[in-house]
Amino acid sequence: MKLNILGCYSATPRTFTNPTAQVLEIGNHIFLIDCGEGTQVQLRKHKIKFNRIKHIFISHLHGDHFFGLVGLISTFRLLTREADLHIHAPKGLQEVITLQMKLANSWTNYNLYFHELTSNVSEIVFEDDKVEVHTIPLDHRVYTNGFLFKEKEGERKLDMNAVLNENINVAYYRKLKQGFDVENEAGHLVKNEAVTKPANKPKSYAFCSDTAYKEDIVPIIKDVDVLYHESTFLEKHAKLAPKTKHSTAKEAARIAKQANVGKLILGHYSTRYDDLNTFKDEANEYFENVELADDGKVFEF
Amino acid sequence: MKLNILGCYSATPRTFTNPTAQVLEIGNHIFLIDCGEGTQVQLRKHKIKFNRIKHIFISHLHGDHFFGLVGLISTFRLLTREADLHIHAPKGLQEVITLQMKLANSWTNYNLYFHELTSNVSEIVFEDDKVEVHTIPLDHRVYTNGFLFKEKEGERKLDMNAVLNENINVAYYRKLKQGFDVENEAGHLVKNEAVTKPANKPKSYAFCSDTAYKEDIVPIIKDVDVLYHESTFLEKHAKLAPKTKHSTAKEAARIAKQANVGKLILGHYSTRYDDLNTFKDEANEYFENVELADDGKVFEF
Repeated sequence: MKLNILGCYSATPRTFTNPTAQVLEIGNHIFLIDCGEGTQVQLRKHKIKFNRIKHIFISHLHGDHFFGLVGLISTFRLLTREADLHIHAPKGLQEVITLQMKLANSWTNYNLYFHELTSNVSEIVFEDDKVEVHTIPLDHRVYTNGFLFKEKEGERKLDMNAVLNENINVAYYRKLKQGFDVENEAGHLVKNEAVTKPANKPKSYAFCSDTAYKEDIVPIIKDVDVLYHESTFLEKHAKLAPKTKHSTAKEAARIAKQANVGKLILGHYSTRYDDLNTFKDEANEYFENVELADDGKVFEF
Repeated sequence: MKLNILGCYSATPRTFTNPTAQVLEIGNHIFLIDCGEGTQVQLRKHKIKFNRIKHIFISHLHGDHFFGLVGLISTFRLLTREADLHIHAPKGLQEVITLQMKLANSWTNYNLYFHELTSNVSEIVFEDDKVEVHTIPLDHRVYTNGFLFKEKEGERKLDMNAVLNENINVAYYRKLKQGFDVENEAGHLVKNEAVTKPANKPKSYAFCSDTAYKEDIVPIIKDVDVLYHESTFLEKHAKLAPKTKHSTAKEAARIAKQANVGKLILGHYSTRYDDLNTFKDEANEYFENVELADDGKVFEF
């Protein structure tokens, strides 16, 4: 999995900072998560192939999380995209996009599918043989979801030396990968564990922005490898957090701790702060493995 | 008058080019003309005071001319703007903007006025004691206007040596500036021309983008000091111009020639061209005083 932070600041795009957008490479997918103004330029800067984006997940309908989407959809059209595009977003986004297409008299030449999110409990919104995407209902001023991206348990790996020693017909390799015991050429049953190794441990990533401190999400994101959790404020502005339904760095760390995540990435910083290291310092008092998101930063796990 | 080109490329924002947006300083105004995606960042880069923008003129509802507007309106709100904002734009924009404010549950704390443009003949859309703004109906794939910005005739200037020599009471200065003859302290009538000089010649600027070649605009923009006219294409792609309702550099120059403008500025280049000088060369065959717009370029006249 590779996470490319295109933008991780709250509120407004500025000369050197961008509103929320991330690209997650998982399985064969390139998922775009949120799409603030300027995201298409960030995608170009980071050389992410537009055509490989087939699914876009929008957390909520505040501008700093989706104002770049209509332009991206329009650019896909100008680049004569043919691949389907799926947008998973709160109710209302489809109306915003189609109204603008109608006024411009510019409809996409590719298939554009809107999948409206309305549930207040976690649900699977995408699934194939390698990956699942679940919503994480959050607590913000408008209807908001985070997203949990999980690799599925992969196939077991053949230990080729052992397989060849046991003289197993190639026709059985598929069954071996699926975990079955098989017969060898001599007609003896070979135990699966004797000739295969476990699959790679499936990785998982949880994106939680924007949200007030919400312990209800802990069971959903339990044990994920990486959690991106918003930390709009520091504790010294803790008063503002519940009022605006955002979190502090301390609160993000407490969620990370309770959920026993591998790594916490902080982001969605209020633009009032100059020194981001104070976010890390504050979170580190409650949770050890903390990193700071920044525009252009790439995390591989 | 000072014209600040924030973006002058067609279609999509790219790493180093921006879609259409311009700022015109005229009288005491800072007018924003069109507002492609990324305009608010361009405004910051060029240190244009957000609060001084009170009027925004939108030519048409293709994304590269207005996708940055909703974000700008939203940023004005976050910066706790108090000044009224007037948006002059085709019918439909108000619905797009208010729908997004409704979904975000984020209404402006300043007064936002939409002035819908629907006429197919030139009309005055803004006027005060110093400036007039007229529409220039253009010919594009959707309803489109250019805009003509005209300074009004100013007051005559006092020739202070002459005024003092003639011993004219200060109470009459205002009348002198307005062009009247007045009596001096001795009771003699003083001819206005003897003690005043003509006002500065009023300047004018015409913005014409996007449009197919349209001679009907010539009487509207006749004798303007500066004309910005789109030149999406070069003549070698002349076939594409009428189909997409855009102009070539040659066509822009022919309009400039017929309208007897002082200077022609070209812009709205298709991103297929690497060398913009070919636009100037092509236009120069038909009109002498041609300049190329470029993002960040400033014209003073």
